[in-house]
Amino acid sequence: MEIKPIAFFRSPLREKFGTPRQAGLVPDLPGSVEFCDGYEPAMLDGLEGFDYIWLIWGFSLNNPDASVSSKVRPPRLGGNEKMGVFATRSPYRPNPLGLSSVRISSIDASAGRISVLGADLVDGTPIYDIKPYVEYADAHPGVRSGFASAAPSVLDVVFAGGSLPLADVSTPGHGQAATGLSEDDIERLKELLSQDPRPAYHDDPERIYGLDYAGHNVRFKVEGKVLTVLSID
Amino acid sequence: MEIKPIAFFRSPLREKFGTPRQAGLVPDLPGSVEFCDGYEPAMLDGLEGFDYIWLIWGFSLNNPDASVSSKVRPPRLGGNEKMGVFATRSPYRPNPLGLSSVRISSIDASAGRISVLGADLVDGTPIYDIKPYVEYADAHPGVRSGFASAAPSVLDVVFAGGSLPLADVSTPGHGQAATGLSEDDIERLKELLSQDPRPAYHDDPERIYGLDYAGHNVRFKVEGKVLTVLSID
Repeated sequence: MEIKPIAFFRSPLREKFGTPRQAGLVPDLPGSVEFCDGYEPAMLDGLEGFDYIWLIWGFSLNNPDASVSSKVRPPRLGGNEKMGVFATRSPYRPNPLGLSSVRISSIDASAGRISVLGADLVDGTPIYDIKPYVEYADAHPGVRSGFASAAPSVLDVVFAGGSLPLADVSTPGHGQAATGLSEDDIERLKELLSQDPRPAYHDDPERIYGLDYAGHNVRFKVEGKVLTVLSID
Repeated sequence: MEIKPIAFFRSPLREKFGTPRQAGLVPDLPGSVEFCDGYEPAMLDGLEGFDYIWLIWGFSLNNPDASVSSKVRPPRLGGNEKMGVFATRSPYRPNPLGLSSVRISSIDASAGRISVLGADLVDGTPIYDIKPYVEYADAHPGVRSGFASAAPSVLDVVFAGGSLPLADVSTPGHGQAATGLSEDDIERLKELLSQDPRPAYHDDPERIYGLDYAGHNVRFKVEGKVLTVLSID
């Protein structure tokens, strides 16, 4: 079966590194679905009555040379334990399709855009289908979810020297830092970093990581359960 | 993007007519996922810890000559009102992918089979991906679901003459009717029929419908909110 993108995702995150590992882990992370060829505004009529949508999308940043294994190492299990690929949400699967429920923040049908919150898609991700989230068919609170029975534990995020290097951002109401990142951006960034972007098998408190957020390079290191932001360029 | 079936669905329902319109509407309807080429038993390791899985599948019984419209008539709205295709779960969509959460009843990894309950897939449906249902990312109880905010209302199902034509089936504990349908089958069939299989625009109390269930032809008619089973051959 041949499927074609109906839309592409826009996100402040352009790399897999740092992108949330599931939808909803950074609930207010902004992004948008931008429709492409074949779109007509009428296709969204009625969507305003729904709080959430499903995105079915492609893992477009997979390494094209990687083969699909029967078993994979979920980050959740520290990278030590293997699980069957169909018991995980691993990007490396026979058909590299992703599935995410995201919250609608606004719809601009004439522009062909749905603004959403909480996605786990990188910028440029192709989207193959969008469906309304229907509570009676899709919501199963309280069911067993195997090794992923709760959201992962999070890190404390602190700034080197005790405060954000950009002093003026720490002033409530300031709105925009010298970096061009707003206070909201800084909040989202802290929530992203708290998810611990490191590969599961990394545990070197001296290692410095770089994460790209909305075109800004964020450098940090992690010791124990504390992530320290060193700089934002 | 080219995707290939990893499995096919097996169901007592071989036609779209009578198949539930969403997953979970007939919660105990049995079915199974039967893996095909490329399957290895290790692919299911760890799935036993999950209650539900997602199936991403193809609407294989779509009319190949039908074109995709921007707006469709959901059966839920009586067939009179149109909605944007991306505000519905219509089978006729730019990429004809279906999405269903189904309950796992048992897993036979060595045979390459997952037995499930509550599916809305017809027999033979190609399945492109299977993912574990992860409560923290997938379950959003209480959200707004537009025109599909609750499961559809159901019909009362009665048998012509006041009881099932196969008198011995009505005896509790009998187990198997002369038709080869078990008491459980009869219960599932009643739940299926209560969903009102008729096209939304049909309202002719004299019209006789036929539904195929596990190879049996079930004839019925509907007047008001009562569906009367006429015969099971």
